[in-house]
Amino acid sequence: MALTTEFTQRLGVTHPVIQAPMAGGSDTPALVAAVSEAGGLGCYGAAYLTPAQIAEFGSAVSAATSKPFGINLFAPTPIPGPVDASAAIEAATPFFSELGLDPPHAPPIPASAFDDQLKAALQCGARVFSFTFGMVPEAAIRELKSRGLFVMGTATTVEEARALERGGVDAVAAQGSEAGGHRGSFRGDFDANVIGTVALVPQVVDAVSIPVVASGGIMDGRGVAAALVLGASAVQMGTAFLTCPESGVVESYREAILGAREDGTRITRAFSGRPARGIVNRFMTEIEKRDGAILPFPLQNALTRPMRTAAVKQNRSEFLSLWAGQGVRMARREAAADLVKRIVAEAELVFEKFSAE
Amino acid sequence: MALTTEFTQRLGVTHPVIQAPMAGGSDTPALVAAVSEAGGLGCYGAAYLTPAQIAEFGSAVSAATSKPFGINLFAPTPIPGPVDASAAIEAATPFFSELGLDPPHAPPIPASAFDDQLKAALQCGARVFSFTFGMVPEAAIRELKSRGLFVMGTATTVEEARALERGGVDAVAAQGSEAGGHRGSFRGDFDANVIGTVALVPQVVDAVSIPVVASGGIMDGRGVAAALVLGASAVQMGTAFLTCPESGVVESYREAILGAREDGTRITRAFSGRPARGIVNRFMTEIEKRDGAILPFPLQNALTRPMRTAAVKQNRSEFLSLWAGQGVRMARREAAADLVKRIVAEAELVFEKFSAE
Repeated sequence: MALTTEFTQRLGVTHPVIQAPMAGGSDTPALVAAVSEAGGLGCYGAAYLTPAQIAEFGSAVSAATSKPFGINLFAPTPIPGPVDASAAIEAATPFFSELGLDPPHAPPIPASAFDDQLKAALQCGARVFSFTFGMVPEAAIRELKSRGLFVMGTATTVEEARALERGGVDAVAAQGSEAGGHRGSFRGDFDANVIGTVALVPQVVDAVSIPVVASGGIMDGRGVAAALVLGASAVQMGTAFLTCPESGVVESYREAILGAREDGTRITRAFSGRPARGIVNRFMTEIEKRDGAILPFPLQNALTRPMRTAAVKQNRSEFLSLWAGQGVRMARREAAADLVKRIVAEAELVFEKFSAE
Repeated sequence: MALTTEFTQRLGVTHPVIQAPMAGGSDTPALVAAVSEAGGLGCYGAAYLTPAQIAEFGSAVSAATSKPFGINLFAPTPIPGPVDASAAIEAATPFFSELGLDPPHAPPIPASAFDDQLKAALQCGARVFSFTFGMVPEAAIRELKSRGLFVMGTATTVEEARALERGGVDAVAAQGSEAGGHRGSFRGDFDANVIGTVALVPQVVDAVSIPVVASGGIMDGRGVAAALVLGASAVQMGTAFLTCPESGVVESYREAILGAREDGTRITRAFSGRPARGIVNRFMTEIEKRDGAILPFPLQNALTRPMRTAAVKQNRSEFLSLWAGQGVRMARREAAADLVKRIVAEAELVFEKFSAE
């Protein structure tokens, strides 16, 4: 079996394909279960979920598949101090009005939800625990591993990958600059940590001895094969799964991906205060133009949430964070199980073509 | 033979490996000939050469190898109108002084050198003619093809690749965001046209029917294999060849590459007025901070040339355009022929590993 890797062997999954945890309602129990059932590893992003929601999501996945699946949280990030939100509120107000909403409130300084979420994650039935935005506390790593979970961190540079390995993770996801959604960067300068997948993956592979998962710009079997020959032990794909019928995205978001060009995304802080790659739209463009209109993460995320929630209900993509990577032209409407099977078959065919006679 | 592609077959070269034309003295006749002699395709960047220098370079390569080689020019770009160079001169003057030079002059508006360079290129003995920064005139394409040259343009987006194919090129080099040196972009927004290789190559392959050459972040056999499985017919590598002893770069430039990290480069206009990726250094950082300090291409290039020439003589990398891609950690000191043979062997080994039993 050509696509067997250290990752598939250690986890007992059939294919080295991870459906990226996407949070914010994009990944549903149906999507996660479909990917795992098809032999990949479905994962859910639980960073915005309460402990009760984490348990509920895990139960729903477990009811639909007995195969391994994963859960993802944000590592604890520094809580910002008090900020003046007036410019951000003023900038966002016209968008709120257009959706029939009252102006946004100054978001309260949030308490870290990590400890409670972690407790729920330990009991949700997941086989894999992944995280992004930094390193989780050592005690968390120990507890996760003692309960038999496979732990994976997210790196955007070699230095971050090394820090994660020293911290005791079982694998590192190397997030290339092509990737949609939030950048996992936690050391150095966000603007410098945008390394293309084809350059990042082999450099991370050379620097650590744990399995490396490639993410960023991978949309089909060609990308899967490329990741494996670069030395990755698996791929993590987000955008490709968003256009599956099982994903939770609103139809206008799905259409935005299917109509997008490879040069139609960029990295923005407009929605959450943290850099993330998405399809360029009106909110992004207008907010980026205004001084002081973007609060630090997670305050901006809290500030824009009512707008995004209303935009989902009204199917208005110009107010949504349309997270997507640079491989968008390769997106298609396809059931998640069919997608997993197709890309694996494509990758195998590619390898057959290049195998010596 | 596993690494045979449409590109190798049409050109009669052994390996699908192109040494990127680098101009500015980085590629020497010895480098170009060594790559071609080793079974790759050596290429020289002739954009800054006079017709006599183009002829001389071609003769030197032809004397050293009978294998095919290539030449590269800049497509004609719009000549800028008169500009006020005072801020650019003021910003650059301290750097000139530090090197013992008088302050720079306002550069004259240049005449296009393309037509004369093209005539020389047609007769220089090259088998391949490649270009960047746009499309060359239709008459040039016709003449090149009628003389039996294989013509290749440079694209950073799908739209640019399609435009080149419509223009009649034989192949298109898809330049990923990881690539060192000047961005080839000629349509749309420079800032949007930074697509990672792993995303760009398959989308270009899907959009055109001519062979696609992958460039950006490819440094060894893993990258070669990745490019081929993504659908590329060859790779084009620049940074990897700069640290070969045959390259023309000054020792401090070579050391800067060998000491660089994957997050140590960025795209700048500071040296030439056109976006190009290089290792961050003092000139880049300080010039980027100052308003109006960068003239449009090619005026900024002309303005900074005396400084760069003096910096080469004095081996001072902080004043040099240290063009390099994001794969810098994979650079090593190695003869060009050994590099070509090593990466091909690595790629073949990778494919063996993934071929079915």
